[in-house]
Amino acid sequence: MCSGHFQRRECKTRPFRHICHLGIFDETAKALGLEDKVHIEVKPTERPISVQIIRKKIDGGELKQEDFDQVIRDIANNNLSDIEITYFVAACYTKGMTLSESHFLTNSVVDNAYKLNLKEKIICDKHCIGGIPGNRTTMVVVPIIAAAGFMIPKTSSRSISSPAGTSDTVEVLAPVYLSPEKVKDIIKKTKGIMIWESSLNPKGAADKKLIDIRHPLSIDPEGMLLASIMAKKKAVGATHVLIDIPIGKTAKVKTYWEAIKLRGKFLKLGRLLKMKTKVIITDGSQPIGNGIGPSLEARDVISVLQNNGPNDLRNKSIALAIEMLKMVNVKNPKKVVLDLIESGKAYAKFMEILYAQGGRKNPIIPLAEYHYSFEAKRNGVVKEMDNYYFSKVARIAGAPKHKTAGIYLRMHVGDHVKKGDELFSIYAETKENLEYAKKYALSQEGMLIR
Amino acid sequence: MCSGHFQRRECKTRPFRHICHLGIFDETAKALGLEDKVHIEVKPTERPISVQIIRKKIDGGELKQEDFDQVIRDIANNNLSDIEITYFVAACYTKGMTLSESHFLTNSVVDNAYKLNLKEKIICDKHCIGGIPGNRTTMVVVPIIAAAGFMIPKTSSRSISSPAGTSDTVEVLAPVYLSPEKVKDIIKKTKGIMIWESSLNPKGAADKKLIDIRHPLSIDPEGMLLASIMAKKKAVGATHVLIDIPIGKTAKVKTYWEAIKLRGKFLKLGRLLKMKTKVIITDGSQPIGNGIGPSLEARDVISVLQNNGPNDLRNKSIALAIEMLKMVNVKNPKKVVLDLIESGKAYAKFMEILYAQGGRKNPIIPLAEYHYSFEAKRNGVVKEMDNYYFSKVARIAGAPKHKTAGIYLRMHVGDHVKKGDELFSIYAETKENLEYAKKYALSQEGMLIR
Repeated sequence: MCSGHFQRRECKTRPFRHICHLGIFDETAKALGLEDKVHIEVKPTERPISVQIIRKKIDGGELKQEDFDQVIRDIANNNLSDIEITYFVAACYTKGMTLSESHFLTNSVVDNAYKLNLKEKIICDKHCIGGIPGNRTTMVVVPIIAAAGFMIPKTSSRSISSPAGTSDTVEVLAPVYLSPEKVKDIIKKTKGIMIWESSLNPKGAADKKLIDIRHPLSIDPEGMLLASIMAKKKAVGATHVLIDIPIGKTAKVKTYWEAIKLRGKFLKLGRLLKMKTKVIITDGSQPIGNGIGPSLEARDVISVLQNNGPNDLRNKSIALAIEMLKMVNVKNPKKVVLDLIESGKAYAKFMEILYAQGGRKNPIIPLAEYHYSFEAKRNGVVKEMDNYYFSKVARIAGAPKHKTAGIYLRMHVGDHVKKGDELFSIYAETKENLEYAKKYALSQEGMLIR
Repeated sequence: MCSGHFQRRECKTRPFRHICHLGIFDETAKALGLEDKVHIEVKPTERPISVQIIRKKIDGGELKQEDFDQVIRDIANNNLSDIEITYFVAACYTKGMTLSESHFLTNSVVDNAYKLNLKEKIICDKHCIGGIPGNRTTMVVVPIIAAAGFMIPKTSSRSISSPAGTSDTVEVLAPVYLSPEKVKDIIKKTKGIMIWESSLNPKGAADKKLIDIRHPLSIDPEGMLLASIMAKKKAVGATHVLIDIPIGKTAKVKTYWEAIKLRGKFLKLGRLLKMKTKVIITDGSQPIGNGIGPSLEARDVISVLQNNGPNDLRNKSIALAIEMLKMVNVKNPKKVVLDLIESGKAYAKFMEILYAQGGRKNPIIPLAEYHYSFEAKRNGVVKEMDNYYFSKVARIAGAPKHKTAGIYLRMHVGDHVKKGDELFSIYAETKENLEYAKKYALSQEGMLIR
């Protein structure tokens, strides 16, 4: 069976007799630890209680802690089918979730996830709502915070619909899928780590399944989004959490007021979960950094940690690091952060963490074989840039699966351009990807020059 | 892939080169008509437009005819995954459907279904909302109407959660899964037929997939229920449609007011679809007939057609047949119906239809090997009977998979009972099933005697 709860299946020739033969898929036999020709007892099972709970939610009822516990446990244990989980997500989306419900869901997700249990007094963590191409601040902030002496066990996602998730970009330089034991060893030694969140839940956390179900229609019930983010922080034992909400016309959060409302919910949830939480609202009107796509972004990160540009990535990362250090009461945080970057200590910490994760001492990041540059057709100023456009072009070019594929931006909003100036380049690992991406890029408008 | 729309999959060793090798599941190769070692071109596909339409509906938008056309076509062509279809059902359920939307959905479902195209001026059809155990009126009404000279090409469902659908019961006496050509031949010869609805859409109609998705949580958006029923009538070319809505505390429709509202919608939809539609509201407070389960119900049907009881099944069937004949302007319909039953003509027509479908001339319906009778523990009158209880006990006893399993009722609401009187018997094909059913039956109260 694909993924449903077990249903009664009879042996056709001898229905429900005491002894009959049962064929089982290899995967099932393995999962149940069954050997060949073994005697087993098969019993019909009841429909999971979760089904009634989901029904209650879709009919507008409010769920309690024990309801969420039941549903999330059943999801974690593969007792619910995709169809049933989809109804759960649709119910939470169409009927909304109270803040209590978000809190309960967070608790249930944490209960069913692996907990790092680091026994440290202060554990920092950060999160960005996402949706902005480039924007690899995590890879700059984590080494700064770790170099400043604070523990920051950062778990990140891979790309779902973007050209790169933080884990896809870190992976250019080091493995991101490590055993929980290994993760603990590293974090104790280096204070910082940058791993794929699935490392801690190799069998797939309930939250991961909810995300998979939300993806096809990009259905993101706000309460689930909140719970998903905060549960990850709680599971690593975070005591201080910094949340970054970028706003912009083509960002996930479009307006300041939406951001303010969302901030309020994060703060309340943070209080309920006993994590000191701070939310900052940042500019999400255009991509951050020049590179879009794993390798091109990794090059930007290294450049910033080596005390160079791109300036937008540098400035945003520094601002975030300062906020984080303020939260843990570091004096003169701006000076501390700048010193760590300028002295090369942050970069050294970055390489130390990556080496501990299994990366090479002196990584070389190649450029993609094929590229094509777009030039300005007129003089003017870059007025707007479309995040969706650059994400889509970079994806068509092959990112994140083709690590070196993506986009390199030569201009940002506010820059003066002359006819013939390079605006951006597409990088691709195959001719076909380059052609696809070029064709799409030419068919749409992604940069407004006036 | 399980059932999703195609997604881009690259050959790992030589991504996106002109020539590479592609392994395909046997089922896929067969479905696409591919032979071994053939050259094929693989292109990335866009996300189906339907996904945006479903998104629109879940966000509260109203859909147009072309929206439903697109979604239903994509469902029929397997372009949507279970997750996506579930969001569609959940959207229609939580946001509701206008009558126009039900009409559009009906049209789309009909467009994507096989149409019988019988070229007859008057084509009768009937439908019962269901949920009442026993209640096999279709098998009595169809031969009466056909014997009266009117065409009635009745398609029925199998059980989803009940102890028997009409098709499960007909199947005790004759095959119900026939080719569309065969169906046409038979109906032209005998005027009546009683087949499983999948006969006309062997590859699975879009509507069938919607029903499969609705089942796990019993999510029945009213607009979808209406569309599903009326589309089947339209697809067989029905001109006159009789709808039976049983009401009762343990029926699908609980109150008279619900029934009245539903009736209004059927009538409006019937007008929009240009089918003369009549809706009657009937007593659904208890099972109809004595037998529950395919074989036991088939015995009841034959008994009624042979001019015997059970009286409740006889009376309800006669009432429905009279209403149907009234609709097609038959004079003195009561006399016509009674004559057809009493003369044995209806029974002869019944056997003629079943024989044409491939049944035996003189069918023998065996009783199940194991049975157990429940006796009254006190004197009194049967005040209430619980439809859910009897459905559940009959299902646990093995119905509908075990054809002879089920329940035989000795008492109905209103009957006087004395301590020790037989109330009902459970029939099962295996000892285990009998034990399971007995255990459940004893643990609950299904018949209120006061």
